Amino acid sequence: MKDDILVSPYFEKNPSLYAFLPMLYMVWADAVLTSAEIAKVRELMDEQDWLQADERAFILSHLDPQNPPSPRELKSWLVEIRRISDQLSPKMRNSLVDIGLKLAELNTADGDSVALDKTRESLTQIEQALGVISNEAAYHLRSAHRETATSNQTTEQTFDVETLADLLDGKDKEIIAAVKAVISQPDFAYLETDNLSEYREKVLDWCKTLAENGFGGMAYPEAYGGGGDMRSYFSIMETLSYHDLSLVIKFGVQFGLFGMSIHFLGTQKHHVKYLPAVGSLALPGCFAMTETHHGSNVKGIETTATYDHSTRSFVIHTPHEAACKEYIGNAAVHGEMATVFAKLMIDEVDYGVNAFLVPLRDPQKQTLPGVKIVDCGRKMGLNGVDNGRIWFDQVSIPYENMLDRFASVSEDGQFDSPITSDNRRFFTMLGTLVGGRIGIPRSGLSAIKSGLAIAIKYGDQRRQFGPENEAEVPILNYRTHQRRLMPLLAKTYALHFGLQYLTERFLARTDDDMQEIEALAAGLKSFSTWHTTQGLQECREACGGKGYLSENRIDRLKNDTDVYTTFEGDNTVLMQLVAKSRLSEFKKEFSDINLFGIIGYIADQAKTSVTERNPITVRNTNKEHLLDFEFHLSAFRYREKEILSSAARRIKHHIDEGMDSFDAFNQTQNHMLTVGSAYVERVVLEQFVAQVERTNDQGAKAVLTQLCQLFALTQIEKHKGWYLENGYMEGIKTKAIRREINELCAEVRENAVPLVEAFRIPDSCLAAPIVVNKA
Amino acid sequence: MKDDILVSPYFEKNPSLYAFLPMLYMVWADAVLTSAEIAKVRELMDEQDWLQADERAFILSHLDPQNPPSPRELKSWLVEIRRISDQLSPKMRNSLVDIGLKLAELNTADGDSVALDKTRESLTQIEQALGVISNEAAYHLRSAHRETATSNQTTEQTFDVETLADLLDGKDKEIIAAVKAVISQPDFAYLETDNLSEYREKVLDWCKTLAENGFGGMAYPEAYGGGGDMRSYFSIMETLSYHDLSLVIKFGVQFGLFGMSIHFLGTQKHHVKYLPAVGSLALPGCFAMTETHHGSNVKGIETTATYDHSTRSFVIHTPHEAACKEYIGNAAVHGEMATVFAKLMIDEVDYGVNAFLVPLRDPQKQTLPGVKIVDCGRKMGLNGVDNGRIWFDQVSIPYENMLDRFASVSEDGQFDSPITSDNRRFFTMLGTLVGGRIGIPRSGLSAIKSGLAIAIKYGDQRRQFGPENEAEVPILNYRTHQRRLMPLLAKTYALHFGLQYLTERFLARTDDDMQEIEALAAGLKSFSTWHTTQGLQECREACGGKGYLSENRIDRLKNDTDVYTTFEGDNTVLMQLVAKSRLSEFKKEFSDINLFGIIGYIADQAKTSVTERNPITVRNTNKEHLLDFEFHLSAFRYREKEILSSAARRIKHHIDEGMDSFDAFNQTQNHMLTVGSAYVERVVLEQFVAQVERTNDQGAKAVLTQLCQLFALTQIEKHKGWYLENGYMEGIKTKAIRREINELCAEVRENAVPLVEAFRIPDSCLAAPIVVNKA
Repeated sequence: MKDDILVSPYFEKNPSLYAFLPMLYMVWADAVLTSAEIAKVRELMDEQDWLQADERAFILSHLDPQNPPSPRELKSWLVEIRRISDQLSPKMRNSLVDIGLKLAELNTADGDSVALDKTRESLTQIEQALGVISNEAAYHLRSAHRETATSNQTTEQTFDVETLADLLDGKDKEIIAAVKAVISQPDFAYLETDNLSEYREKVLDWCKTLAENGFGGMAYPEAYGGGGDMRSYFSIMETLSYHDLSLVIKFGVQFGLFGMSIHFLGTQKHHVKYLPAVGSLALPGCFAMTETHHGSNVKGIETTATYDHSTRSFVIHTPHEAACKEYIGNAAVHGEMATVFAKLMIDEVDYGVNAFLVPLRDPQKQTLPGVKIVDCGRKMGLNGVDNGRIWFDQVSIPYENMLDRFASVSEDGQFDSPITSDNRRFFTMLGTLVGGRIGIPRSGLSAIKSGLAIAIKYGDQRRQFGPENEAEVPILNYRTHQRRLMPLLAKTYALHFGLQYLTERFLARTDDDMQEIEALAAGLKSFSTWHTTQGLQECREACGGKGYLSENRIDRLKNDTDVYTTFEGDNTVLMQLVAKSRLSEFKKEFSDINLFGIIGYIADQAKTSVTERNPITVRNTNKEHLLDFEFHLSAFRYREKEILSSAARRIKHHIDEGMDSFDAFNQTQNHMLTVGSAYVERVVLEQFVAQVERTNDQGAKAVLTQLCQLFALTQIEKHKGWYLENGYMEGIKTKAIRREINELCAEVRENAVPLVEAFRIPDSCLAAPIVVNKA
Repeated sequence: MKDDILVSPYFEKNPSLYAFLPMLYMVWADAVLTSAEIAKVRELMDEQDWLQADERAFILSHLDPQNPPSPRELKSWLVEIRRISDQLSPKMRNSLVDIGLKLAELNTADGDSVALDKTRESLTQIEQALGVISNEAAYHLRSAHRETATSNQTTEQTFDVETLADLLDGKDKEIIAAVKAVISQPDFAYLETDNLSEYREKVLDWCKTLAENGFGGMAYPEAYGGGGDMRSYFSIMETLSYHDLSLVIKFGVQFGLFGMSIHFLGTQKHHVKYLPAVGSLALPGCFAMTETHHGSNVKGIETTATYDHSTRSFVIHTPHEAACKEYIGNAAVHGEMATVFAKLMIDEVDYGVNAFLVPLRDPQKQTLPGVKIVDCGRKMGLNGVDNGRIWFDQVSIPYENMLDRFASVSEDGQFDSPITSDNRRFFTMLGTLVGGRIGIPRSGLSAIKSGLAIAIKYGDQRRQFGPENEAEVPILNYRTHQRRLMPLLAKTYALHFGLQYLTERFLARTDDDMQEIEALAAGLKSFSTWHTTQGLQECREACGGKGYLSENRIDRLKNDTDVYTTFEGDNTVLMQLVAKSRLSEFKKEFSDINLFGIIGYIADQAKTSVTERNPITVRNTNKEHLLDFEFHLSAFRYREKEILSSAARRIKHHIDEGMDSFDAFNQTQNHMLTVGSAYVERVVLEQFVAQVERTNDQGAKAVLTQLCQLFALTQIEKHKGWYLENGYMEGIKTKAIRREINELCAEVRENAVPLVEAFRIPDSCLAAPIVVNKA
């Protein structure tokens, strides 16, 4: 401010009026003071008859909305006020009245104490009438530094990143490092092109490089050129997902869907003949199950494979336009063969859905006679994958091309299978492919890890708004921002351990386990991919305009993984399967109680939990209790059981009243979704708690404990309507939980940046200029 | 089934054993029967000592998991069973026991009634032990048609589409029809290109066509070549949004942001000189406010406009790299001039943010000296708009280029403004531009209307799953699908009327209204654009794989509108502004009560509402009560008041305890978000109810009533945790609300297709093959 701008000379002549300057400044500087409020101040000033008439007139003239001070004059007042207020003690500095009086005192040779008292009285009256939050107002009037807890929050790392990262990688550390080494090579730099075909070729090239490194056939038996290591296959999928998601899906179609269908549905003759070529990508292939008219209800597909006795061959045929194979990855351009699911017809008898290897193209990529393929074109994401639609027009394939592990046609043309029911056989076949429902959520989890790494690091650096006259504050210090991102971080950690558990269960599977593993995979796939979709949406919004620019990759992460909630089983449909499985799981546990007998059992079980609903527990707001894993586990388990038994009761009630069972299930469909998710949530929490308990490193254990508590309480808060409705908690407790969550968010925020660093995502993969350039 | 497949000849010889055939079929056909259950059946069979030893052995041999029947044999059983069960009365057909007995009876010359009784007894015992849902099981055993309520639901239109469509269009019917006529022309066919530059040129061409039709300058005064019709401007934005969203934003940048800044912030000399050229698109321009380091906190922008006394000019300058103008639409390629917001500096005094017209390019599109522009590149969406970053290096512009409605520099170089405070002046300037916060949510609402039209029509046609042996069911008949889409449809209608109301308030605005209108616009913009984002996500998932294909447009709708939650004010920041405004609104209403005085007042008000919390009301599950608008309005209003007063109390409490006010607001930030949304929800409901009440057409009134009830109850259900926490409802009531919502969803489903037809979206705009081709 230049020296030539000064307050009115009248103040110099009547220095006691300086006392009113802070009040006048506030009246004009405040952007929201209404004219009614200004009128109120004028009225109060008019009553100060101890002031001389001309003094009063002077002040009033400075309170006239028709004749406001000039912007320049206002600025001069602030200079004047700050000169004084900066010299005051912190306490006096917080009061407009004190600042004004000091201003008057310092400008007066010998202070008139009586007038000062009067002034104090009137100023206090005005301040109260205005209702100005006086400490906020006073902050405007000084240039001194202001400390706020919000501004001061910053990263306070309390654990060793490498220790936690090693814990996350677990047994897979080596393969993860090996994959990262490959995808960090210069050739894996992201391709900036809008050209679909260029992008697709690049993705194919990348897949070839991965195959050359032995990653493609990792899960196949060593006898057929594979690595014999299913565990590593999952880690490869997960790690590749830090890179381009089209690459992951192209990789998954070739080596997972196509290759595993041969591995699990075929027999030795297929393994010998095809697996080496699949694993090396010498034979690019597809997995052709879904049809336009049959996606979720895949049992209803209409493509036929008709056995021809005379030639011992099968004729693959698409009976009508909408029975074509749809969305088939690798089909539009590269695929030379497909595992085709079709209804096997022998002598006009339908033997249900079976799988056949059908050649699509010659090595020059020309489609073979009878095969029509149309490109699915551009998609919301995954545009590096060439999806297509396939129609078959009486395509004949040799007998050996039937994948015959579970069913075959004998030399005399008889259908033969160790599994009597077509239904059960088909679901057994699908069951062998459940690995896809493990690979996909693990891939999605890597995507949300990338999204969180970007959003959290950006939130830690990006500053916006702040205390008046102070530096702006990192947006991650704001409660709304913490509330958006910290629970997502906690849930991501929770799902990491949940998916690890699922993987271990799958790797150690036995026939008896399969029903449970399938339910767990379906449930975790849904729960986890919804988390990815919702979480990446939140990350996009949390990064504002920067999150909308493609260079920062959140759009790609979001759009590429968006279909994860649809493929490998639509999430809504899967959650209903989980629920139905939960009902029959209970049947298995109590084999001499029938389906509706067990309802009584569950209901009894639920009733015994009433002890948890005693008046003390439902109102317990003790911090130790709220943070106790035992409380969380009980709450999750109670909800799971109660929802399951009430679903069973509702279905039974409808059927007892004569409702068709199909309608009864439809009436309870939404309820069934919660049966599925309550089950998954309980499993995930149990695994997270178990992980915390077996963690030895104290730093890691402490931060995992916080994350686990945050995960548990956030889920409970999300379902607080249910808990309150069912009397498991009272309002006083759910409100206390909200406060605990706020505190946990603030605590986790301080470790948030190291927590995303523990994902050890290569910089070249993260690649978002908003965070990587600044690192 | 060919005749050569037959049941075992043993049955022919021992026809009474036919009675066990249905049970045997179920054992093997059921895909989930466990081996423990099969063992249980064997055990029970073994106890049937009234059977002859060889008969028992025969049955047991058919219950041996080591030696299951062949798939072919199983099929023969079904043929045999169906032949009988189809002849039975509906009641008998529902029991496995009855079917079995009838089978035995018909195959026996003279029935042995004693054995039949025994058989009935043992079969009943087995059926109970298995816990088979017998009517479901029986459905498998007959080929007759099965009627279910779920299958039968279909469109039952109860209102006239054109009447409702006219009601939605209201006063704007003509301009809406005029815009639709233009965007339905062949030249407006969507461009299928991956090439950014081609897309951007096409969008520019489209904008020129719109300008030629007089839509561009619609809101400008007629004296300057405009249409003098702000109302129509909003309807143009809304209607264009059925077409490409890039077009809408390009249109909005040019004619809205750029043109309106000249219109509202400039004076006559600017209007004369520029508005005709802006309206005709002869002068393409930008609105350059946001900077890389200052987006939400736009008051903090750092670009300077330094007044040069000697030449009476301003020097526009970007002080550092990250102070560049960011995301500026029309900047990367087409813009020739920009309204640039910069801090005005005169003699080293900062007079806050003001607006200046700065030339960027010559008509040959060469950037002018001192101007550096970099393309923002590809974005998540809106890729037909050329966004760019702009840096200014000491760019001198003539004095006349200051938009000087609210501030100017006098001939002697003095700053002059009728508004004293820099802050207040800046927010007054922004206030004139609030129209953008009306245009954007209206545009977003059109996008979700398109998404719902696609998802609902698809859901009505798409069939998947169904009762066993029956036609598949339209997925819109499933409760989960109805629960996903019907509340979105209701909320979309609610917001249509809410945004109409906002528009009317804006068009009739006075100075006194402005604070309320700004809060309403900020709140509705946030609430509505979040609805668009979340709703389109739901539509994408609800259309499964088809929703992922770009040809069906949901990806574009979602990605293009995704940034609506960010631009024109980040939603989270805006909701906090709304909340702060709500606090001060109360100040205005009670001008002699200060901020904390009014807290007591609100608290009292809230307490008087306690009458609503009497034991009868909180447990009232009467249908009439639950569907009553008075109940909905009371619940919304109670929540709004209670949340507002508790937020004020919390802030005061923190400050009283000595917390810095900045920290106090941060602590209550999440609470403040709900203050904002509770306010918006109440306004939207009030407007929807008012609309229902003034609707004369009975068909339209009835369906709007259902939609309004569904909207109200869905919001209450969403907040049931809060209502239960605060004792406004008990669990019995929230559960009853859930049931009402289920019923309303089923009712609205029957009108759902006509309800989206009432949006009258041109087929050429909707353009999704999954629905349009089939129409």
